[in-house]
Amino acid sequence: MSLTVVGSIAFDSVRTPFGERDRMLGGSAVHFALAASFFTDVGVVGPVGDDFGEAELELLRERGVETRDIERVEGGETFFWRGHYEHDLNVAHTDDTRLNVFGDFEPKLSDASKAADVVFLGNIQPELQRGVRAQCNGAGLVALDSMNLWIETARDSLVAAISEVDCLLLNDAELRMLTEEPNLARAARAVMELGPRIVVAKRGEYGAALFTPDGFFAIPGFLLEDVRDPTGAGDSFAGGFLGYLDGAGARDGDDRELRRAMAYGSVLASFNVEDFGTERVSRLTRDEIEDRLAEFKRLTHFEE
Amino acid sequence: MSLTVVGSIAFDSVRTPFGERDRMLGGSAVHFALAASFFTDVGVVGPVGDDFGEAELELLRERGVETRDIERVEGGETFFWRGHYEHDLNVAHTDDTRLNVFGDFEPKLSDASKAADVVFLGNIQPELQRGVRAQCNGAGLVALDSMNLWIETARDSLVAAISEVDCLLLNDAELRMLTEEPNLARAARAVMELGPRIVVAKRGEYGAALFTPDGFFAIPGFLLEDVRDPTGAGDSFAGGFLGYLDGAGARDGDDRELRRAMAYGSVLASFNVEDFGTERVSRLTRDEIEDRLAEFKRLTHFEE
Repeated sequence: MSLTVVGSIAFDSVRTPFGERDRMLGGSAVHFALAASFFTDVGVVGPVGDDFGEAELELLRERGVETRDIERVEGGETFFWRGHYEHDLNVAHTDDTRLNVFGDFEPKLSDASKAADVVFLGNIQPELQRGVRAQCNGAGLVALDSMNLWIETARDSLVAAISEVDCLLLNDAELRMLTEEPNLARAARAVMELGPRIVVAKRGEYGAALFTPDGFFAIPGFLLEDVRDPTGAGDSFAGGFLGYLDGAGARDGDDRELRRAMAYGSVLASFNVEDFGTERVSRLTRDEIEDRLAEFKRLTHFEE
Repeated sequence: MSLTVVGSIAFDSVRTPFGERDRMLGGSAVHFALAASFFTDVGVVGPVGDDFGEAELELLRERGVETRDIERVEGGETFFWRGHYEHDLNVAHTDDTRLNVFGDFEPKLSDASKAADVVFLGNIQPELQRGVRAQCNGAGLVALDSMNLWIETARDSLVAAISEVDCLLLNDAELRMLTEEPNLARAARAVMELGPRIVVAKRGEYGAALFTPDGFFAIPGFLLEDVRDPTGAGDSFAGGFLGYLDGAGARDGDDRELRRAMAYGSVLASFNVEDFGTERVSRLTRDEIEDRLAEFKRLTHFEE
């Protein structure tokens, strides 16, 4: 079992009604890898600049994340995002985005990363995702995330990238936008016609829905009284989801395992939002995950 | 077991991307009563005008709904609502509202209606809700629904009305607006401090969440490929929820029964939206409800 993730490695400056942080470690690949690290061996592929130090690498390594394919670009600066949230934590307001070293990124995978059983193509330019995907032909499960930016500016590339993967994870609004189909179930079916056999609609605080050829499954969000920073929740969900599937050796789309993976994804996302950036997940334990999964089961269970 | 509902009895003219209907039977009390009628004896309290005919009464009576407290106001016209939905079926656009006979409505309950075990105060002016509530002192469970209009224009009356009931059902955005608390779990707790021991947050297509002193429960929406008209879904949810509780004799807030009631509420709402107005629920059978409940259980079930 092994999992390769390509995506952004970033410094994030974030303000919410509950506090703020300057230049904390973030990015889709980082949030994903930390969440997945509780279930399997995960390696990160992505570029950083001179400003990326030992402390940041150490945070990943402490969770057992393989960092050999984190490429340091001399004279470059790490991807930077500044944003804020109002009281509606479902909506991120972007104040500044600097691609920096991501502007010229050409993913180079080590043989070990290429040989991964599961691959997650985090939200980056679709042609970069295709480049990574082409290097990982042995993977049993390749999943892709994206965003409205690429739907609007690189639709053809994105559709090509989607057609080459097994699983698409996307926000529900973006699924509707991509397929121009307002009904979520129909939107998911339209995606399946492009190629993927698994579609996951992320619904923010409302949870997530899973679509497969066998049918669908929906799970509400884990209700929390204290949400401090939602940044990275979707990537933590993806990390819990794919990390669990890889760790359980369930890459073939077994329905029972996919549902359990949805629950683990929700649990990891729920921890992610309890504190800023990676602060909560980086001090998380597997016991806490299992306890919350059991609580989640109780909170969603009903008898006929 | 018996249930009294007070609320609007209306003619609705509705347009959605999937069709339109002119002056079809609608209103919160009507949608509620039809849904509840599958589980218990339900009677409607509310005014209608000369334009309300035998056909409308017959539609209710065919489902066993008691209509003796439907008051015909001579020379008056029935409450009328005209609205439309764009592709985002979560948002109703109101084009015309005519209170008509509701403008001077003074609820008069027969002794049988006053003696109900469960009472639902549908979304009408809060002082009218209080007037009905005061006439039903023997009820074991009194629930109230409201809307943003009353939060904005009659907040003090609404808070007084809420403090006098056992259960509040409200859209999640309205719960946040009422309590000025952006976090849903905290908003629900703030409502409980006003009096109700049960709070249900309706979340449209995303399902619903239940809050009690014991904790919370969340259920996703039943995913449908064909949604034609969401008008009345919230009232059908309430009808399934409270109708089940009354029919099961579960008015004391038993957690297991409340969860089951949430599932029945979701099932009734899911049928409501499959066709315009009351068209789907008025031809529904109890077997279809039980089949969908079983399907719903399968669609939300996961194993730890």
